Amino acid sequence: MSIADLKKAVCDANLDLVFHGLVKMTFGNASAIDREAGLVVIKPSGVSYEKMKPRDMVVVNVAGEVVEGDYRPSVDLPTHLRLYEAFPSVGGVAHSHSHYATCWAQACRAIPCLGTTHADYFYGDVPVTEVLTKMEVGDHYERAIGDSIVQAFKERDPLECPGVLVANHAPFAWGKSVGDAVEHARVLEEVAQLALHTLAIDPGKKSIADHLLDKHFLRKHGDHAYYGQ
Amino acid sequence: MSIADLKKAVCDANLDLVFHGLVKMTFGNASAIDREAGLVVIKPSGVSYEKMKPRDMVVVNVAGEVVEGDYRPSVDLPTHLRLYEAFPSVGGVAHSHSHYATCWAQACRAIPCLGTTHADYFYGDVPVTEVLTKMEVGDHYERAIGDSIVQAFKERDPLECPGVLVANHAPFAWGKSVGDAVEHARVLEEVAQLALHTLAIDPGKKSIADHLLDKHFLRKHGDHAYYGQ
Amino acid sequence: MSIADLKKAVCDANLDLVFHGLVKMTFGNASAIDREAGLVVIKPSGVSYEKMKPRDMVVVNVAGEVVEGDYRPSVDLPTHLRLYEAFPSVGGVAHSHSHYATCWAQACRAIPCLGTTHADYFYGDVPVTEVLTKMEVGDHYERAIGDSIVQAFKERDPLECPGVLVANHAPFAWGKSVGDAVEHARVLEEVAQLALHTLAIDPGKKSIADHLLDKHFLRKHGDHAYYGQ
Amino acid sequence: MSIADLKKAVCDANLDLVFHGLVKMTFGNASAIDREAGLVVIKPSGVSYEKMKPRDMVVVNVAGEVVEGDYRPSVDLPTHLRLYEAFPSVGGVAHSHSHYATCWAQACRAIPCLGTTHADYFYGDVPVTEVLTKMEVGDHYERAIGDSIVQAFKERDPLECPGVLVANHAPFAWGKSVGDAVEHARVLEEVAQLALHTLAIDPGKKSIADHLLDKHFLRKHGDHAYYGQ
Repeated sequence: MSIADLKKAVCDANLDLVFHGLVKMTFGNASAIDREAGLVVIKPSGVSYEKMKPRDMVVVNVAGEVVEGDYRPSVDLPTHLRLYEAFPSVGGVAHSHSHYATCWAQACRAIPCLGTTHADYFYGDVPVTEVLTKMEVGDHYERAIGDSIVQAFKERDPLECPGVLVANHAPFAWGKSVGDAVEHARVLEEVAQLALHTLAIDPGKKSIADHLLDKHFLRKHGDHAYYGQ
Repeated sequence: MSIADLKKAVCDANLDLVFHGLVKMTFGNASAIDREAGLVVIKPSGVSYEKMKPRDMVVVNVAGEVVEGDYRPSVDLPTHLRLYEAFPSVGGVAHSHSHYATCWAQACRAIPCLGTTHADYFYGDVPVTEVLTKMEVGDHYERAIGDSIVQAFKERDPLECPGVLVANHAPFAWGKSVGDAVEHARVLEEVAQLALHTLAIDPGKKSIADHLLDKHFLRKHGDHAYYGQ
Repeated sequence: MSIADLKKAVCDANLDLVFHGLVKMTFGNASAIDREAGLVVIKPSGVSYEKMKPRDMVVVNVAGEVVEGDYRPSVDLPTHLRLYEAFPSVGGVAHSHSHYATCWAQACRAIPCLGTTHADYFYGDVPVTEVLTKMEVGDHYERAIGDSIVQAFKERDPLECPGVLVANHAPFAWGKSVGDAVEHARVLEEVAQLALHTLAIDPGKKSIADHLLDKHFLRKHGDHAYYGQ
Repeated sequence: MSIADLKKAVCDANLDLVFHGLVKMTFGNASAIDREAGLVVIKPSGVSYEKMKPRDMVVVNVAGEVVEGDYRPSVDLPTHLRLYEAFPSVGGVAHSHSHYATCWAQACRAIPCLGTTHADYFYGDVPVTEVLTKMEVGDHYERAIGDSIVQAFKERDPLECPGVLVANHAPFAWGKSVGDAVEHARVLEEVAQLALHTLAIDPGKKSIADHLLDKHFLRKHGDHAYYGQ
């Protein structure tokens, strides 16, 4: 995919986050990486969604230096770069402040796997990061957020759980492409809302059995997947 | 109704599930049966709703073998077939992941009849299936789901309670036609949300009295029905 | 207002109930009375909202006999007639199954006046009717509902509290005109949702002080009203 | 900005409150001040949003006397005037009955800062005013509301917390311009809903650490702000 195509894909992804109600005001951003070229395309900071065009996307190198674009990149760029660095299988990242996922993030609670909708996409709990220390919330705050996400996945494959809750903040989601990242952001929001209301019905509800989790995740994602065309 | 008409009805029903907000992503499917011809028409698996046309519907025989269609049938086909086999009065089935009904399913709780909206359509609790064992969640998982639904109705007329919650998963609804199945899926979602919020106001609220349940269900559905034209 | 105008007003009111999301499926009906002519205009039973026209409205006399119209009147007609009989100041009635008001009705709880939005329209609690006995839920069920509403207002002016919760069922609202009845149905729904979520924040929250209730209700409705143009 | 421009800005702001779902019925109003001219432009009282035009806005002097306009000003004018008098940095005020902020107001509870969405806009708790006494709810009720807001901010900069909850009533928000006031009203509503659902997940959740609050508020608003273009 050319950089021009990637700019279009990233612009579309940012607008899709708004269309699906995952972003309030300008609280959100999506990016994609061209690993061969070593370039990341990301939303500009604080630009209105109504006028956003592919040419407004900002192209940076993996060090975060702007290579192309009229605007400053999203303030969350260092978090995106840290994820691309640590997760080689990831091609796109979406950060939203979608309502229910943000509530779980604010509550500093992982989302337990309470049903098959969750299991279809997330192979177990959606983790929450550790709360950052005062030192971490310093000059390199946005990169420290990335570090905390990487830490939460040190024993998990990021494509088996394509999303996370940043403690006290909001969710990040990712995927092989930026389109997948947006899809996972949408499912994460639904799963977060389902979990909240499920626990309202039965506060003691536990995660589903491993065999049901395996069945649903693997019928869609494993080597023996038989879901879809 | 010809198979062509049935394909249109099934396509419409699938799109109606989306229109009414009962389906997120592609989590849902509707089907109909032509009992004389021994054929079932069902949504194709994983096809985008935006482009879905009647000709994309898949026609299978009651053994589940594809008779007509360019796509693979929905992965949930064996569940639909099991319901048609066990419930001779049923002409259409709708499976959604509608939000509140899914929460009750995830909580593994039947929805009690807390008011007349419920009683107008469901003659008593909407039951939840038994949780499947590890063995049941095997090669014939989707058929085992159907078995668990049939088991939940062994002492009930499926048209007196045209819906069920599959434990840890989501609802199924049905009716004499696939249009009725969608209508029942919509009411089931409303009833599920009403029950959650009613219990938030009064956690100890009990099911309505039998005479009120009888009155509402029977004024619409019994031999002496006097509701509607 | 001529009967033709009243049919248009009643048709508009029924469609407004749908437009404002207060009616699911066909669960709702609005009516108006021409007291000089002794005629009531009401929605036909079970007719689709999409095709509803003023000419489809049913005209009945105060005994409930159809005077004009191609359809049967709404099954809830006897309730409407009972309200017109007992409340001479009422010119229109709206029955909906709006979500949150229905939850309070299902919980059989009056809605306490927890803030000024409520006090602007309802002068104190919105009452809930007594649960009907088995005998009352008989051949004259819909009229018995009307009786139970009248009973709940035996010491209150119906225009000072233009709505009620029918226990285990749903709300009714009314006003000087059918347009007012719909407005009150809308406010009742908002007030019901506000009360549920206010109690979620503080389960012990009490009704506002009488002087604040007086101030808000009377600045809009009393002899010394100074709100509006 | 000319008075004509201000009338357009105020009209737009009032319609934006409706567009963003913050106003039900006619429960809301926005205003702006031209400090050089000593004039305030505010919504007329009880006028339908559908037909509202810039020319319908009412221009008053700081004593509240109508200088221009065909309608009476919003009944809440004295509250707006009190805020402009006490908060010299404020150029616009928006009063809504947005759902979740109104619930916190009805519960008479300040909204704690439970996450970074809140911290991006409000530097600490969003306060709730003291409940007004019977005497305060008298002839100068609307001005007394303004006094209670001013009292709640006697030790805070109103631009560091551009909103408040009026006890038992609803929120007010403000900003340097009336456009900012509407933006803050929107964020306040989101923050109110996030807080309610966060506490539903963890009822004991405490406010975020001061270093995280500082970081988020100051990266957008301090002298060293680096957020946005």
